[in-house]
Amino acid sequence: MAKVGVVGATGYIGGELLRLLITHPKAELAVATSRKEVGEYLYRVHPNLRGFTDLKFSEPNIDRISDACDLVFTATPHGSSVKIVPRLLEVGLRVVDLSADFRLRKPEEYPKWYGWEHPFPDLLEKAVYGLPELHRDEIRKAPLVANPGCISTSAILALAPLAKVDFIDLDRVVVDSKIGSSAAGAQPSLSTHHPERSGVVRPYKAVGHRHTAEVEQEIGALANREIRIALSAHAVDIVRGILSTTHLFTTREVEAPEIWRAYRSFYANEPFIRFVRDRRGLYRLPDPKVVVGTNFCDIGFEIDEHVNRLVVLSSLDNLVKGGAGAAIQNMNIMLGIDETTGLLQPSLHPA
Amino acid sequence: MAKVGVVGATGYIGGELLRLLITHPKAELAVATSRKEVGEYLYRVHPNLRGFTDLKFSEPNIDRISDACDLVFTATPHGSSVKIVPRLLEVGLRVVDLSADFRLRKPEEYPKWYGWEHPFPDLLEKAVYGLPELHRDEIRKAPLVANPGCISTSAILALAPLAKVDFIDLDRVVVDSKIGSSAAGAQPSLSTHHPERSGVVRPYKAVGHRHTAEVEQEIGALANREIRIALSAHAVDIVRGILSTTHLFTTREVEAPEIWRAYRSFYANEPFIRFVRDRRGLYRLPDPKVVVGTNFCDIGFEIDEHVNRLVVLSSLDNLVKGGAGAAIQNMNIMLGIDETTGLLQPSLHPA
Amino acid sequence: MAKVGVVGATGYIGGELLRLLITHPKAELAVATSRKEVGEYLYRVHPNLRGFTDLKFSEPNIDRISDACDLVFTATPHGSSVKIVPRLLEVGLRVVDLSADFRLRKPEEYPKWYGWEHPFPDLLEKAVYGLPELHRDEIRKAPLVANPGCISTSAILALAPLAKVDFIDLDRVVVDSKIGSSAAGAQPSLSTHHPERSGVVRPYKAVGHRHTAEVEQEIGALANREIRIALSAHAVDIVRGILSTTHLFTTREVEAPEIWRAYRSFYANEPFIRFVRDRRGLYRLPDPKVVVGTNFCDIGFEIDEHVNRLVVLSSLDNLVKGGAGAAIQNMNIMLGIDETTGLLQPSLHPA
Amino acid sequence: MAKVGVVGATGYIGGELLRLLITHPKAELAVATSRKEVGEYLYRVHPNLRGFTDLKFSEPNIDRISDACDLVFTATPHGSSVKIVPRLLEVGLRVVDLSADFRLRKPEEYPKWYGWEHPFPDLLEKAVYGLPELHRDEIRKAPLVANPGCISTSAILALAPLAKVDFIDLDRVVVDSKIGSSAAGAQPSLSTHHPERSGVVRPYKAVGHRHTAEVEQEIGALANREIRIALSAHAVDIVRGILSTTHLFTTREVEAPEIWRAYRSFYANEPFIRFVRDRRGLYRLPDPKVVVGTNFCDIGFEIDEHVNRLVVLSSLDNLVKGGAGAAIQNMNIMLGIDETTGLLQPSLHPA
Repeated sequence: MAKVGVVGATGYIGGELLRLLITHPKAELAVATSRKEVGEYLYRVHPNLRGFTDLKFSEPNIDRISDACDLVFTATPHGSSVKIVPRLLEVGLRVVDLSADFRLRKPEEYPKWYGWEHPFPDLLEKAVYGLPELHRDEIRKAPLVANPGCISTSAILALAPLAKVDFIDLDRVVVDSKIGSSAAGAQPSLSTHHPERSGVVRPYKAVGHRHTAEVEQEIGALANREIRIALSAHAVDIVRGILSTTHLFTTREVEAPEIWRAYRSFYANEPFIRFVRDRRGLYRLPDPKVVVGTNFCDIGFEIDEHVNRLVVLSSLDNLVKGGAGAAIQNMNIMLGIDETTGLLQPSLHPA
Repeated sequence: MAKVGVVGATGYIGGELLRLLITHPKAELAVATSRKEVGEYLYRVHPNLRGFTDLKFSEPNIDRISDACDLVFTATPHGSSVKIVPRLLEVGLRVVDLSADFRLRKPEEYPKWYGWEHPFPDLLEKAVYGLPELHRDEIRKAPLVANPGCISTSAILALAPLAKVDFIDLDRVVVDSKIGSSAAGAQPSLSTHHPERSGVVRPYKAVGHRHTAEVEQEIGALANREIRIALSAHAVDIVRGILSTTHLFTTREVEAPEIWRAYRSFYANEPFIRFVRDRRGLYRLPDPKVVVGTNFCDIGFEIDEHVNRLVVLSSLDNLVKGGAGAAIQNMNIMLGIDETTGLLQPSLHPA
Repeated sequence: MAKVGVVGATGYIGGELLRLLITHPKAELAVATSRKEVGEYLYRVHPNLRGFTDLKFSEPNIDRISDACDLVFTATPHGSSVKIVPRLLEVGLRVVDLSADFRLRKPEEYPKWYGWEHPFPDLLEKAVYGLPELHRDEIRKAPLVANPGCISTSAILALAPLAKVDFIDLDRVVVDSKIGSSAAGAQPSLSTHHPERSGVVRPYKAVGHRHTAEVEQEIGALANREIRIALSAHAVDIVRGILSTTHLFTTREVEAPEIWRAYRSFYANEPFIRFVRDRRGLYRLPDPKVVVGTNFCDIGFEIDEHVNRLVVLSSLDNLVKGGAGAAIQNMNIMLGIDETTGLLQPSLHPA
Repeated sequence: MAKVGVVGATGYIGGELLRLLITHPKAELAVATSRKEVGEYLYRVHPNLRGFTDLKFSEPNIDRISDACDLVFTATPHGSSVKIVPRLLEVGLRVVDLSADFRLRKPEEYPKWYGWEHPFPDLLEKAVYGLPELHRDEIRKAPLVANPGCISTSAILALAPLAKVDFIDLDRVVVDSKIGSSAAGAQPSLSTHHPERSGVVRPYKAVGHRHTAEVEQEIGALANREIRIALSAHAVDIVRGILSTTHLFTTREVEAPEIWRAYRSFYANEPFIRFVRDRRGLYRLPDPKVVVGTNFCDIGFEIDEHVNRLVVLSSLDNLVKGGAGAAIQNMNIMLGIDETTGLLQPSLHPA
């Protein structure tokens, strides 16, 4: 039974880690820290945990975490992880960080996308980008795993199998993402105020979304060239979930079987990739509604012969496969546990 | 490993049974029948099951069900169960029926509430009303369990501990229920058409709701007198969930501790009753949002000294504790399995 | 053309006043004040006004308001109106106040329901409770109109015609209200944070709602006796709208025609009361979905013979008939303009 | 006072026409036809009209319509209009058709996009595509106006000002649309069943949407060359509204002022185009939430220097500017009435 801790356990990603750890058969939640809720029961902040645990939030004390845990999740804000992660590594803990602070390989990307100089460029080299579908072997032994962003995951998983094919124009990749309100975190603001957030289709980041950097890094590495991605993010009236619509122009006519082959061979035996492309049924293509609460990324596509276009749809739950679920998947890999442990539950339908 | 079947597996209650059975460690889903979807994969109708099962819908053939199963759930419409259940019992199967066809003890209630004469009054005597919190021991050995209605469950669980106290005016009980769209079933109609159903607070059954009969039967039995309940049901813009607000007038001033005592003693050790009445926090009283996907019934109350009123709040997921989850709980009891098996998952939050 | 001002114009009630005034054919919006948005265009805060006005928010300067306006709406918070209204009256302005600060006749009610002593008991005597259906004649000449609360309006309009009949048990009146998120105002908080507010059926004020005091005052006055109301308020997942379900026990069997008569005679020719009680159709009883954006209060009822109960349903838009619309209706009356001016628009359907 | 009729008045577009006509100061609703609701009050089908009209649905009798009306709206289904419109024209009526039956100039497009041969190719030549921003002068005298599709309108209005500039790659135009449930019409189906439609981000037409043909026709005409558009349509959880995100690759670096100029000069004095591109505020770019119920098309843009991309956002209400509102605008033009008559109302906010 591995002992694990969650640093920054009051946010939505933190809460989701708690939920998944509490029901995980091979891991024990030993510590959950929060500066502002010290001494409070977890279920007061995360009402779904009522009846499941009597644990309370504690101070983020490095020594105490070190004594109690084998592995730690840092669900701290961007810019905070970079302060605490080095100290956790120093005392010998393995860390899965859920912020963006260690996701980008090149230090020069941080001033560009995040507006600050990275203080630990050497750690960026050691950190592994925690997308098991691309980096499973490195994750296994990594001291520090940088858990991917939610939109990034949906876009990378849609694009990766096509990075090396010769029929896609990689200079005209459009990713149009639609995302739920939980991605904005647990902190109230005018933009998340229910009367203002309800019913929107808000282009909250039509250009310049930070997750672009991760997509370009990972797809560029696969394609072995620099890639630029045209990404736009929209807020829609759901709480959880992302649908990314990736529009790709093909350099020749393509047919469904060769697209299938690219995906199936790239994702052979991947436990959390589901292919969704049916001839009939309401859910014949990916829809976040069907993956809420699960660790799946559903992927499907349509071929638009009219304009030589391939439309790839990918959906996931931003708090699970786009956050805490991927982190647990990484933990399972790091600890040598079967990768799907604690993560295989069907979603609710309808819900 | 018990082998179980689901008759009428295309509806929402049927689908929820499939979801719970597929992940149940001590039961195996052997048969799922549907007249109109014979030969189709389960996941085509219930998209959440994609990747979890390759089972297909089959014809509701009594012999085949009898060969394959130890216990059968009938998730057939009101008026259909009464035709198939006797035949299933005849071949020796134990049955949990999820329709209303065997819930009422007195045959004369059927013409009154459902508009038809009950053809098997003797079966009504044998059937056990499947609310474990009231009838656990009878359920254990019952050949036929009549699974309760969703609103009924929320109201009965709110009222039962007070049926014998001396400070409640049982002749002025108001139950005001708010309920999600999944309770109307999987069949589309104008009333469930998204543009018409979205954003409503629709008093769809301000008087005369059929579940009233069950509440009166069960609370009347506990109170040992005839009870009439003033129940109103409203449709609100959620998919799953019920909140029942039960307004009770007290015959004297009451204080919180004595109400607590009544509930805690009545529901001592009940695994699926959670008491929710905190001094602070957003979810300090029951809210269906927090029980979606779970088998819990959350119960709380407030005392209104201003008018000698006790307000009891009870919330549950109409498809789980108000449907399939209660049915699995009944199955566990009938099969001598630990009652909570396959049913203890925290809900998602936020969702 | 009457010149009017809105003090406290950044909130939701304030914004709704602006919307109604901008399209009002007989009133001109002369001033809109806001301390925190001085100099900003109205449409930056109220995006629906883009293209309709170039007015900017100004400081709440009494002299300037006095010079520019004939009548002022104070859409200031509870406890703030009481400070500014006396000064506006002093300079000779007529005032419609949308806070609760002048709604209650008896000064002793303020410490009880609002927690503070009222500093101007004499003004309470002069203020008219601004429900035209009850106080039209007094409103006409009033210097100060206290615009009613939203839940209060829905409950009072449902109850008023029955206050004098002899077949209702007025000691057991239950008002169960369901309300949208805009009623909580424009200020973000955890309780209105979209992930937490979405999908709730939250008993946010199961007992002790302040609007109770208004209902008791007005219905008590009609019944000529002290009345206590058992009111509970629930938050549901809509932005605008209230449905109040008023449960009344009858002292004898009643029939629909006599209920009709009571309502029709009480509300003869009322322009904003619609009776909704059809035999068929989806919207055969009041539903807030149908009154959003309008100044109507829809009223209907059902008779529950089973328990000698009368269920009255009343629905309105909390920002219009429950706020700014009623205020404009009051203004029309005060200024001798046709009462419906600027207020007769059908709602959108579906929406 | 012009007398107008609505043929096919039970659908959502039909209902919206009724709403707008009932409050129109220069038009009188003389006839509203429906085969299936003959003799029923309009408000039974369109509950928002309760109290506004006592008109009843009548049979679609050509002679009667001809006697009663000067102009007729046909809000009949695709494939039905083509049967009735020629007969209405024959008796001398002017017609605004809201189906797709007369929108495409080239008869050969009908088999391709709609699957049937057009029986009246000559009428296609006479019909004017009813987008006032492009064809105002032709509309003025047209006997038959083909009212545009909703997605088409949002895409054409976004693209038109750029059709002639030299810095856009018109061979790589991606239009990613998000749309509400009312666009699917008033007929219930599984795909609009609330439990299935609620919470979706469903790529219901990832390729092959029929509105593509209209966009290509109109933008092609402006650009004076054949244009192919890569359009994808997604269903989101709103009732009304469209946001189209148009992704355009630029052939050189562009700056905001030149984009502004293109739009402002093209749409100078257009009463229903609003430019939305603020530096601050929640609604700094178009969002359907802000145009619900109005005849506006809000347009804004962002420049993505990272990939030489221009992202144009356009939002409208599919039932108003994307349907009935545009039809009334066309009627105003055809009848020589001021174009904005009956169409200038701010939306509700929040709602």
